[in-house]
Amino acid sequence: MSEAVDIAVVGATGILGEALLELLEEREFPIADLHLLGSGESTGKSLPFRGRSLRVRDLSGFDFSSVRLAFFATAESVVREHAVRAQAAGCSVIDLSGAFPGDEARLVQMAVDPAVADIDQPAMFAIPCAPAAEVAEVLAALRSLVAVERITVTACLSASALGREGVQELARQTAELLNARPVEPRLLDRQYAFNVLGQVGAVDAQGHAQIERRLVRELERLLPELQQRVSASCVLAPVFFGDALSLNLRASAPISLEAVRAALESAPGIELLEDDYPTVVGDAIGQDVLYVGRVRHGIDDPCELNLWIASDNVRKGVVSNAVALAESLIKHYS
Amino acid sequence: MSEAVDIAVVGATGILGEALLELLEEREFPIADLHLLGSGESTGKSLPFRGRSLRVRDLSGFDFSSVRLAFFATAESVVREHAVRAQAAGCSVIDLSGAFPGDEARLVQMAVDPAVADIDQPAMFAIPCAPAAEVAEVLAALRSLVAVERITVTACLSASALGREGVQELARQTAELLNARPVEPRLLDRQYAFNVLGQVGAVDAQGHAQIERRLVRELERLLPELQQRVSASCVLAPVFFGDALSLNLRASAPISLEAVRAALESAPGIELLEDDYPTVVGDAIGQDVLYVGRVRHGIDDPCELNLWIASDNVRKGVVSNAVALAESLIKHYS
Repeated sequence: MSEAVDIAVVGATGILGEALLELLEEREFPIADLHLLGSGESTGKSLPFRGRSLRVRDLSGFDFSSVRLAFFATAESVVREHAVRAQAAGCSVIDLSGAFPGDEARLVQMAVDPAVADIDQPAMFAIPCAPAAEVAEVLAALRSLVAVERITVTACLSASALGREGVQELARQTAELLNARPVEPRLLDRQYAFNVLGQVGAVDAQGHAQIERRLVRELERLLPELQQRVSASCVLAPVFFGDALSLNLRASAPISLEAVRAALESAPGIELLEDDYPTVVGDAIGQDVLYVGRVRHGIDDPCELNLWIASDNVRKGVVSNAVALAESLIKHYS
Repeated sequence: MSEAVDIAVVGATGILGEALLELLEEREFPIADLHLLGSGESTGKSLPFRGRSLRVRDLSGFDFSSVRLAFFATAESVVREHAVRAQAAGCSVIDLSGAFPGDEARLVQMAVDPAVADIDQPAMFAIPCAPAAEVAEVLAALRSLVAVERITVTACLSASALGREGVQELARQTAELLNARPVEPRLLDRQYAFNVLGQVGAVDAQGHAQIERRLVRELERLLPELQQRVSASCVLAPVFFGDALSLNLRASAPISLEAVRAALESAPGIELLEDDYPTVVGDAIGQDVLYVGRVRHGIDDPCELNLWIASDNVRKGVVSNAVALAESLIKHYS
């Protein structure tokens, strides 16, 4: 058992922050003092943790030299403003926001590279976005079997990818429609209930959304053999939680489905459904496991592999990876 | 103006049949006598057409020698039982069910091959499934520009792909959930509301769903240059109507996005959204046009083209193609 450490959670009132507190409590993470930090409206709110009620304090006045480890689960711009300050104060940073796309932070998917914790601390770590972490975990399991020529990821993201406001928007719009009231989009520019949105957020001059760039960039960093081999389309389904991913992968040689199934079955974080398909509601939500099904070739191509993945984007996709990293990091603390 | 003809609509009470009647009325199709036919529960029901109320009669006793043209918009098994009989009686058949996958019927997408009506009649025609017709129309517009090496279609189908029962199931489940009642799946084996189902119907021994096989087979027949180049995954989004398709296409040479945009803009059945993305609700539903947006290369690959398509699966995907074919066929009647 590691010695108890002082930690900070920035963005504790968001969807990721809340799930983080839940998992830290569930895994009995050895915490001495827990500091909940936020900015704007979240400051002053109280959250439950281990039977106590903790107040969210203002991030800007916080002295990070009082903690060993800080989770940053808030807007990129806020993270960029405070994470470097935290590290300079001697605190290791685990960023969940994607604020540090380059070499300033070490990108970590524990299921792919658990040796990361040997880095000198204080250090800056970045947690990949949920679909990148999920696809990376599946491909890492198949690494020795399949030489990927090209992979096309079509990700059906859910309202929670837009944060708590996304979940509220979908609930409100759905209720309005079922009560035969006109839908008034607020967060989004159009009807989201009973609709599939083919784009998540704004796109750049080349037409790619930020989440698509992030997915590709992070996959390539986690599995360097995928460099320039990834194509991604992210859409928003009218679903509250969960990632549902359709993977189409082409290899340079015929793929043995038996070997693929065996590899997926022996991967600790993956649950393979044989002759069935998983869904986010009913299978994945609330679980620390990736569900994989519909393992099949292309209709006319044994060099092609198709897979369907369902995952809890918040818990499995992001938070359990961040907590697993933290558990590994604190083993080095004396 | 063509001379008025006697026609029959088999399966008039289903989602496709209903939309067919609506469009025949809207386009002022020259009908002398219209016979609505069905089996089981639908027999005896009445449907409105041109201000009158028409009774659905029993299909099994109907003499097809009394009509020139029959639309079959009902279950495959029923079509297989009666369509050949209709043709033998001297009636041309337009099948919307996919009952005739082989050479016994001529597969028609009018936007791709309008010359089909020159065939000797009575003849058997097959209308492709909505996603095949939609993808074919878009690719036909790009035919001279892009030599496709591989195309991956990820189709987010809607409840209406399962017929009226699918639409009712989604509505009922959604209402139950919003009223905090437990969901009881009936038509499907799991919760469909606020969930994405990664498989549509049962799969065969190779893991492919019937609709995926049909999509690939029909695309290859409509555009023979796509032989063995198509990969398809169909999923079911919690949406009532509409097809939302993500297309990923790889060519043997760099693709000019300017040329692609120009070609899509000049295609009569396609509406290109520049710098935006279409959705089924708000854009496509009720329209006879395919909406295309998010025209972009791969993130790192100018030989790759990504597109997002939104379409009314019932009206644009199937019924307007069937009616356009019929309009063309009756020009040959004297």
